Amino acid sequence: MKKEFKGIFTALTTPFGEEKVLPEKFRENIEKYNQYELAGYVIGGSTGENVYLTDDERDVLLRTARETAAPGRKLIAGTGCESTLNTIVATNRAAEMGADAALVILPHYYKSLMTVDALKAYFLTIADKAAIPLIIYSIPRNTGITPPAELIVELSLHPNILGIKDSSGNLTLLEEAGPFMPEGSTFLLGAGSILFPGLLMGASGGIMTLAATVPELCIQLYSLFLEGKFKEAKKLQLELVFLNQAVTRDHGVPGAKYVLDLRGYYGGPCRSPLLPLGDAVKIHIKTILTDLNLI
Amino acid sequence: MKKEFKGIFTALTTPFGEEKVLPEKFRENIEKYNQYELAGYVIGGSTGENVYLTDDERDVLLRTARETAAPGRKLIAGTGCESTLNTIVATNRAAEMGADAALVILPHYYKSLMTVDALKAYFLTIADKAAIPLIIYSIPRNTGITPPAELIVELSLHPNILGIKDSSGNLTLLEEAGPFMPEGSTFLLGAGSILFPGLLMGASGGIMTLAATVPELCIQLYSLFLEGKFKEAKKLQLELVFLNQAVTRDHGVPGAKYVLDLRGYYGGPCRSPLLPLGDAVKIHIKTILTDLNLI
Amino acid sequence: MKKEFKGIFTALTTPFGEEKVLPEKFRENIEKYNQYELAGYVIGGSTGENVYLTDDERDVLLRTARETAAPGRKLIAGTGCESTLNTIVATNRAAEMGADAALVILPHYYKSLMTVDALKAYFLTIADKAAIPLIIYSIPRNTGITPPAELIVELSLHPNILGIKDSSGNLTLLEEAGPFMPEGSTFLLGAGSILFPGLLMGASGGIMTLAATVPELCIQLYSLFLEGKFKEAKKLQLELVFLNQAVTRDHGVPGAKYVLDLRGYYGGPCRSPLLPLGDAVKIHIKTILTDLNLI
Amino acid sequence: MKKEFKGIFTALTTPFGEEKVLPEKFRENIEKYNQYELAGYVIGGSTGENVYLTDDERDVLLRTARETAAPGRKLIAGTGCESTLNTIVATNRAAEMGADAALVILPHYYKSLMTVDALKAYFLTIADKAAIPLIIYSIPRNTGITPPAELIVELSLHPNILGIKDSSGNLTLLEEAGPFMPEGSTFLLGAGSILFPGLLMGASGGIMTLAATVPELCIQLYSLFLEGKFKEAKKLQLELVFLNQAVTRDHGVPGAKYVLDLRGYYGGPCRSPLLPLGDAVKIHIKTILTDLNLI
Repeated sequence: MKKEFKGIFTALTTPFGEEKVLPEKFRENIEKYNQYELAGYVIGGSTGENVYLTDDERDVLLRTARETAAPGRKLIAGTGCESTLNTIVATNRAAEMGADAALVILPHYYKSLMTVDALKAYFLTIADKAAIPLIIYSIPRNTGITPPAELIVELSLHPNILGIKDSSGNLTLLEEAGPFMPEGSTFLLGAGSILFPGLLMGASGGIMTLAATVPELCIQLYSLFLEGKFKEAKKLQLELVFLNQAVTRDHGVPGAKYVLDLRGYYGGPCRSPLLPLGDAVKIHIKTILTDLNLI
Repeated sequence: MKKEFKGIFTALTTPFGEEKVLPEKFRENIEKYNQYELAGYVIGGSTGENVYLTDDERDVLLRTARETAAPGRKLIAGTGCESTLNTIVATNRAAEMGADAALVILPHYYKSLMTVDALKAYFLTIADKAAIPLIIYSIPRNTGITPPAELIVELSLHPNILGIKDSSGNLTLLEEAGPFMPEGSTFLLGAGSILFPGLLMGASGGIMTLAATVPELCIQLYSLFLEGKFKEAKKLQLELVFLNQAVTRDHGVPGAKYVLDLRGYYGGPCRSPLLPLGDAVKIHIKTILTDLNLI
Repeated sequence: MKKEFKGIFTALTTPFGEEKVLPEKFRENIEKYNQYELAGYVIGGSTGENVYLTDDERDVLLRTARETAAPGRKLIAGTGCESTLNTIVATNRAAEMGADAALVILPHYYKSLMTVDALKAYFLTIADKAAIPLIIYSIPRNTGITPPAELIVELSLHPNILGIKDSSGNLTLLEEAGPFMPEGSTFLLGAGSILFPGLLMGASGGIMTLAATVPELCIQLYSLFLEGKFKEAKKLQLELVFLNQAVTRDHGVPGAKYVLDLRGYYGGPCRSPLLPLGDAVKIHIKTILTDLNLI
Repeated sequence: MKKEFKGIFTALTTPFGEEKVLPEKFRENIEKYNQYELAGYVIGGSTGENVYLTDDERDVLLRTARETAAPGRKLIAGTGCESTLNTIVATNRAAEMGADAALVILPHYYKSLMTVDALKAYFLTIADKAAIPLIIYSIPRNTGITPPAELIVELSLHPNILGIKDSSGNLTLLEEAGPFMPEGSTFLLGAGSILFPGLLMGASGGIMTLAATVPELCIQLYSLFLEGKFKEAKKLQLELVFLNQAVTRDHGVPGAKYVLDLRGYYGGPCRSPLLPLGDAVKIHIKTILTDLNLI
């Protein structure tokens, strides 16, 4: 049986200064995250501006994370490229750098040709050749593709595919695929807005930008769920809705990094072409944090 | 304070025979539904093929429902037209026929012009002139419009607007608008797939096609929620997922009517241009019902 | 062989005053249009706010148009409802009021169920029973449905289907279906932005909001095309682009009516929920007309 | 004044054998294309499976193209990455390999954050630092972004931005931006289906997959346009519609490569995850070519 990836994973941001990766700031952030009971870290996800990184930069980040992460923390590396071949190479390179699993986004440039058969062949081929297990990464807002439940179930039967991270923001795939994936499968939520309802419907946990900005509250929510304190969990979930929307749907990574700056982490600028936040947005985000008694 | 509409509402189908409305079959179906603890019935919703009905047919259906519905059952009539004027007329006509509330879909033909201001004026004007209270009806799949949470909150402050039926299939609006709507507001789920998670996050109940096909199971799910039996509720919710998809997303009203035929209600044909189901779909639906031990 | 509908058709607006139809203003507008070599008029199209009219109002408008239109002008009535039955009734009612042809929009409320087979049966059934010939009306922006070329070709083989009005704004359907429709078929463009290129690729003419606002320029463009003065045609087409966008994509019927007001026609307000234009938009539209030396 | 890029450019495919780039086959294809009066070649466009290539492979292809292309042929290299920095590096590397211009796709992973301001800063920064001039590449089907005309006009004022390749498949941007771009600007059509109407409305030429499969016919169409033989041009344009759809919208690069195989070029397989064509599609494509008397 596969080892299920459970609990709260922080999707790490990538610290930049004048467009350069700052590994020392990355290390310092991880050290701060280490104090919370997080299940692990994602390096090179959407939150990590992965599409803006070079291969060498990804290496540095992964090695730094491996060195710095508290013992037992799982490291998940974003390794999805458009081609099957490049994804295999990137995945095995991540394995060498110490990643425990690879997060592989659906290839999507040739959207209309990414049929179920094409996607199936893609993931099975990679799973066969990968030195570490895979987690399928579905994020329809960015890829324009919603994988059908049957595909996810079938792929989850492969011994080297752990399961899926679903950032759709709804519960459809969890409800349709979840119950039919083999025992020990991993179903991680990508949307902080449905962490509690998703856990209730059977999710393993979450990989969330939200957990980069308020890791302690995400863990608290997860604990309330585990303890069956559903009323408190609902309350906390609702309190987190606006912060979550601000750092995902509305203002994305620049929004998340600004929250980090306000909370004592290193946020800093994003890489171009992502623009800095305007003043109105900054005030809006500050207000949300003040309402949550976080600043 | 407004009177919250709570619990499970059946979205009634409209029985046809050779393209004609069959009020007697409509009556018989309602009599069957009367045996369950349903909160009420929706006449002329999407499930009722409202867009295919004439005004006179709507009258007959409403009067029949009023005569037949068990005491205390709330009747909600679909009265949304594209124009403000026609919707007011239709709403007040429904009031005369005995409706307790009107379900008013977002006008959507001129999508790009249906700004927040246009929608606000539309609903406020109707609410001012309507003899019965309104429930806003959001169904983005059919209208192409997703109303912002702020609009729903603002509209819910009007004394004659009860709240919203949201058929988006996700929890976004519930989480973003729900906590800010005045006490006593109504938030009804339109998607059977998220009844349980939606109730957990604060929804008042549901108006669902699913409740036309398996009213007893929808009520059971609602009861399990009220009793705090969350584990059983989750199990039942997951069991209902495929039936729900079959009678909504996949096969729509023709699918729902076929389930009715199989379960001792009158389903019958839909009005043209809705086509009868093919044999493969019928077998698929039968299998789902067999798996649920319903036939 | 069918009689092809050729040339420029004005999509008439419906004059309102305090939400009431003003037949006298409608008549006056038509009298003004009569002075131009227009092929005919469309009553109850998208430009005519058809979705906001009652059956009786449609009757009045059609009869007024029949009485007022210059001899030989073709009258095309928008008669598409969601149900097959209602569309047949509306079409034959329009025939009685004097319409020469019916413009029938694709039914679209149950989008996902409007398969090729459903649409085919819909149009063939109506064509069989209609007292006047049909023109299929495709407007994907409003309906969310793009009919495949094969369907349009097949439908055009029916003796009572003249062809199509395509408001897609691109040339795909014209190029893919046009050459395969039987001789004498009608292919009318709904987008003023591609009148000239569309005519060059074989279109019969156009039904356009633009032809309600600047009929003389639309006719001039059509004449330049007929005379082979392609350089001048291109120049005029480009000059009309911004006016066309203003009265369709950007500001819709309210925009078109404002242009009418400025040019000596009766424009007046739209029906609610369409809002009046703001001042900035009015200035923008005035500037466009000034640039065209029209005011 | 900038040097306008005019005429027909072939979007080259990248030959693979067992997933490896085959530079010799690439050279042979170019030698065949050299016999036609093409304006130049695009290396590493969507047709060239650019997203599947490594930097080193791009170098080899560009150098081979530079060595092989007939004198005077312009080489345009696809160099767009998601980050500003990486695109500058890739562009200057392409310049060193002999490219005459760079084709830079709109960055699109963080779609909702790619505002007009973000895109403007992106292209202006790159244009400032690039050793060769840029052509903006808009392909909404793949990127999900349609740039507004104002942005394209403003960017075209930069001395190092030649203009745009627009693969939208409609004439909107050409009509709205074209007349306002400075003299000498380049507007290349990416959709073979509207080559003739686009040229008539002012386009400079085309960069088309179609020109990889039937370069002689694309050139013939362009010549007919230049000679004012519009009737023949229309006829030829319509004849090309189905082939064009087959190698773009319907079957993409695998379809184009199959046409190459049938016509004496090296087509060969695409890189995974693009799947080989099924037999039914192959027969369909053969029929199209037979109808065109090409095989």
